[in-house]
Amino acid sequence: MVFPSDLEISRSAVLQPLTEVAAGVGIDEQLLEPYGRTAAKVSLDAIDHLADRPRAKYVVVTAITPTPLGEGKTTTTVGLGQAFGQLSLPGMVAVRQPSMGPTFGIKGGAAGGGYAQVAPMEALNLHLTGDMHAVTAAHNLLAAMVDNHLHKGNALGLDPHAVSWRRVIDVNDRDLRQIVSGLGGRADGSPRQTGFDITAASEVMAILALCTSLQDLRARLGRIVVGYDYDGQPVTAEMLRAAGAMCVILRDAIKPNLMQTVEQTPVLVHCGPFGNIAHGNSSIVADRIGIRAADYLVTEAGFGADMGAERFFNIKCRASGLTPDAAVVVATVRGLKAHSGKYTVVAGRPLPEAMLEESPDDVRAGAENLRRQIANVRRHGVTPVVAVNAFPTDHDSEQRAILHVAAEEGVRAAVSTHFTEGGKGAIELAEAVIDACDEPSGFDLLYPDELPLVDKIDTVARQIYGADGIDVSPTAARQLETYERNGFGSLPVCIAKTHLSLSADPALKGAPSGWRLPVREVRASAGAGFVYPICGEMRTMPGLSSSPAAERIDIDANGEVVGLS
Amino acid sequence: MVFPSDLEISRSAVLQPLTEVAAGVGIDEQLLEPYGRTAAKVSLDAIDHLADRPRAKYVVVTAITPTPLGEGKTTTTVGLGQAFGQLSLPGMVAVRQPSMGPTFGIKGGAAGGGYAQVAPMEALNLHLTGDMHAVTAAHNLLAAMVDNHLHKGNALGLDPHAVSWRRVIDVNDRDLRQIVSGLGGRADGSPRQTGFDITAASEVMAILALCTSLQDLRARLGRIVVGYDYDGQPVTAEMLRAAGAMCVILRDAIKPNLMQTVEQTPVLVHCGPFGNIAHGNSSIVADRIGIRAADYLVTEAGFGADMGAERFFNIKCRASGLTPDAAVVVATVRGLKAHSGKYTVVAGRPLPEAMLEESPDDVRAGAENLRRQIANVRRHGVTPVVAVNAFPTDHDSEQRAILHVAAEEGVRAAVSTHFTEGGKGAIELAEAVIDACDEPSGFDLLYPDELPLVDKIDTVARQIYGADGIDVSPTAARQLETYERNGFGSLPVCIAKTHLSLSADPALKGAPSGWRLPVREVRASAGAGFVYPICGEMRTMPGLSSSPAAERIDIDANGEVVGLS
Repeated sequence: MVFPSDLEISRSAVLQPLTEVAAGVGIDEQLLEPYGRTAAKVSLDAIDHLADRPRAKYVVVTAITPTPLGEGKTTTTVGLGQAFGQLSLPGMVAVRQPSMGPTFGIKGGAAGGGYAQVAPMEALNLHLTGDMHAVTAAHNLLAAMVDNHLHKGNALGLDPHAVSWRRVIDVNDRDLRQIVSGLGGRADGSPRQTGFDITAASEVMAILALCTSLQDLRARLGRIVVGYDYDGQPVTAEMLRAAGAMCVILRDAIKPNLMQTVEQTPVLVHCGPFGNIAHGNSSIVADRIGIRAADYLVTEAGFGADMGAERFFNIKCRASGLTPDAAVVVATVRGLKAHSGKYTVVAGRPLPEAMLEESPDDVRAGAENLRRQIANVRRHGVTPVVAVNAFPTDHDSEQRAILHVAAEEGVRAAVSTHFTEGGKGAIELAEAVIDACDEPSGFDLLYPDELPLVDKIDTVARQIYGADGIDVSPTAARQLETYERNGFGSLPVCIAKTHLSLSADPALKGAPSGWRLPVREVRASAGAGFVYPICGEMRTMPGLSSSPAAERIDIDANGEVVGLS
Repeated sequence: MVFPSDLEISRSAVLQPLTEVAAGVGIDEQLLEPYGRTAAKVSLDAIDHLADRPRAKYVVVTAITPTPLGEGKTTTTVGLGQAFGQLSLPGMVAVRQPSMGPTFGIKGGAAGGGYAQVAPMEALNLHLTGDMHAVTAAHNLLAAMVDNHLHKGNALGLDPHAVSWRRVIDVNDRDLRQIVSGLGGRADGSPRQTGFDITAASEVMAILALCTSLQDLRARLGRIVVGYDYDGQPVTAEMLRAAGAMCVILRDAIKPNLMQTVEQTPVLVHCGPFGNIAHGNSSIVADRIGIRAADYLVTEAGFGADMGAERFFNIKCRASGLTPDAAVVVATVRGLKAHSGKYTVVAGRPLPEAMLEESPDDVRAGAENLRRQIANVRRHGVTPVVAVNAFPTDHDSEQRAILHVAAEEGVRAAVSTHFTEGGKGAIELAEAVIDACDEPSGFDLLYPDELPLVDKIDTVARQIYGADGIDVSPTAARQLETYERNGFGSLPVCIAKTHLSLSADPALKGAPSGWRLPVREVRASAGAGFVYPICGEMRTMPGLSSSPAAERIDIDANGEVVGLS
């Protein structure tokens, strides 16, 4: 039998009315605003409505350092949520919304996969309830107001060469990375070098994900720094009188979107901030609702535990005040084999043939990465659980090798076959998670607010990445000094480095040692509330390939979508 | 008593559940997809479901040549729809969706006004169900695929200097009018002069408004010409394999949006194509639903009767096959006074003091414009009705002067006070419209498909605008020849000229004679299905003022929107 495509599985799923999905976790119909028949926005009033209910166990799903193919964190998140349903426990899932640009680029859609996915995948991947578009619109209104301010007399003395606010669009469009705007005549603005990032990279997206209420959203938008005046002082969205209108544009986008998995598990889909220059986690408001709705709230953090989970702990939990009870570390046979350093995995291409041969030794050779990511979770006082995300090409001996590493580290572990079997395949994992959540936990931030920014970077580099220290460029040093002076010194740091290695060099696999983290420059997302040092090439606008998914996506004679995968 | 603001009136309106609004015009709940609580998409299946019902009377609302302030065509459209309700007749309104960019620019919101508006105005003016965003996304995906095609080997031989497909954004952003994209390194595309238009100016918007079904949408998208190859042959979205994905992006946007007026009259809000470079009418699919739902379907055409109504007749009705029964020509005292040529009216500023003094002579001096627009309606075999849209600053003698002109022309007329009184204030107008619809009508297109393009332009210029003829530039002549050769010769023409005069010179008021229409260049919207000669300066991307509405739009302490007006 041929395994069905994600789209076929999504289409064949029997979905419940969302009012029933919501009712199952205590969310009244009056708190739902339907958007079409397959998604609904949840009013933020739900936070107050649910306040008296017991707090759920809060589980974050993270991973080893992934290959460019990803190691199935989203499928594991969804599968784990579904497993709670199989155990008749009220579980709930909170995930990011996929970006539409990449849907038409390399990916063709993202919603988990196999029998562990959010449904329907068309709704999830295309517009959903329009939040991404609202972020784009709010971001670009501010950009227009920046240039309009320059055009209309520049009362604030904004230095055109010190404007850092670019524009965003949710399309993979490399030609917009670097542009000169304001060409034409005097009435068409003033020429200025600028460009577009993809919407997921917008600070507005990070703000939406990190705000705790509508009023907090309004305040954070006002704190956005668009650039500096001729005296080097920050110019904010509030000073440009843009933040109110931006907040109005986002007033529906702040409400999380309720959907369901193919097994009818409730899912809150909300926000999709970038995983390198931003924190790569779904929204705080979604978790604030989910934490009182379900018994188990499972959320996902982008990339490996050094990246998404570190930010989950030190940026998201710092802002929300919510503390996790357990962290699932997803590991795969192919991922650990890649960490042996013997193979090169490339996105969009099949795995090297040799990598498919049985070799538990390769797995063991790459296991240092798993050990380090387990330690990274423990460093925050959180109990790890290793999930071996099973692939059909795995050999038993290889999966056992991973379980053996986990046992050596004293960590609960389970093989999970959610992709092919849905929630049933993740029951053993769920039982391990339940046990882990029952352990006394002592969540701890990695560093206090008051630590100087440079020391925060050094702490993450040494304690999480395993670096020997950091090398701060003169530019970066000057920027750090400016940020401390501007009052941003108490913010957490979001280190923008490659997600393909614990180090700053994507070619270094396993758990590299004997290296130092180069800090090239530092930027601030003052509205979102973090400072982000740039430690490598960060691409904030993808391009299309020579054969983009868009070329295969179409409607058929019945008007149904084809080509999403 | 101070007259309440539009936002206050909108907030105080008692709205019905949309299922009841729909049921009142025979639309089953199963055909509705709710989007929030105040808008719902109507499935295109409604066209088949309603096929056996009698056909409604089809009324288009047009106007004299407006001042820059507008003469209240939308309020009249809404008020007339409400008046049918007052007469216990099932009336329905079909209008365009306001563009979000201008909401934050000069206007602060558009939804009719006073007691004749679509509610709630926040939903209407902000995102609604995301159709505008979908148009933006589909348009810009094609743009990215154009540049990606150039970047990845240019197999079609597309001439980079002959690419006419720009990008769009729904923000008033003058600095994006003219840009150079593709700067940076080799991986960042190739430098090329291009720019952004506002989303309403997108050909995709015109296509969405003119298509008759999802499959027709798909076919029209494929016919979009993005530029020409090195041999001068058109390169289409179909050849770039982009049209399928664009159609998928638009698969919800094609469904009209059901809302209601402040008097619970059902309103289909759908599409907002530009009124100069496009046809400026709401969608055909909305009218196809409305024409079988209500007894009276009232729709609006942009600008004066020489512009929106001419395109309604010759572009929209040509494509839909629907024929109008009556056309309301909105006239105002201030508008006809302005046509006397004695006053200058400027957008965003109060009327000149002298214009507010009682002067029926000024009204009579400007009446030639009204006479010409009445004739323009009659030229298409449609029965006109003059609506005097009353303003508090009008004098009785001035309103009577308009009624007298209508009587001289043998046209039914009524003063309408819908702005201050709602549907009750438009009852007399509605009765005149009912009588007009009962007249035998002989709708006639102005010109046949097979007339050469240049003769179509000449026909509109002479017979509708009152020109002595047309002056075609050598460039335009060459372009017309190319379009005839490319097979676009059978398309109707959409003449892009100023809407502030019957002529091509916005300063000429009344009904100018002794002038010729200069045709500077000609462009084709092959997907939408029209050719548009450019006869004047056409701004397709507005800018923000020195005090944009965005600066006053905010949320209050309760999270409610303030500053929309």
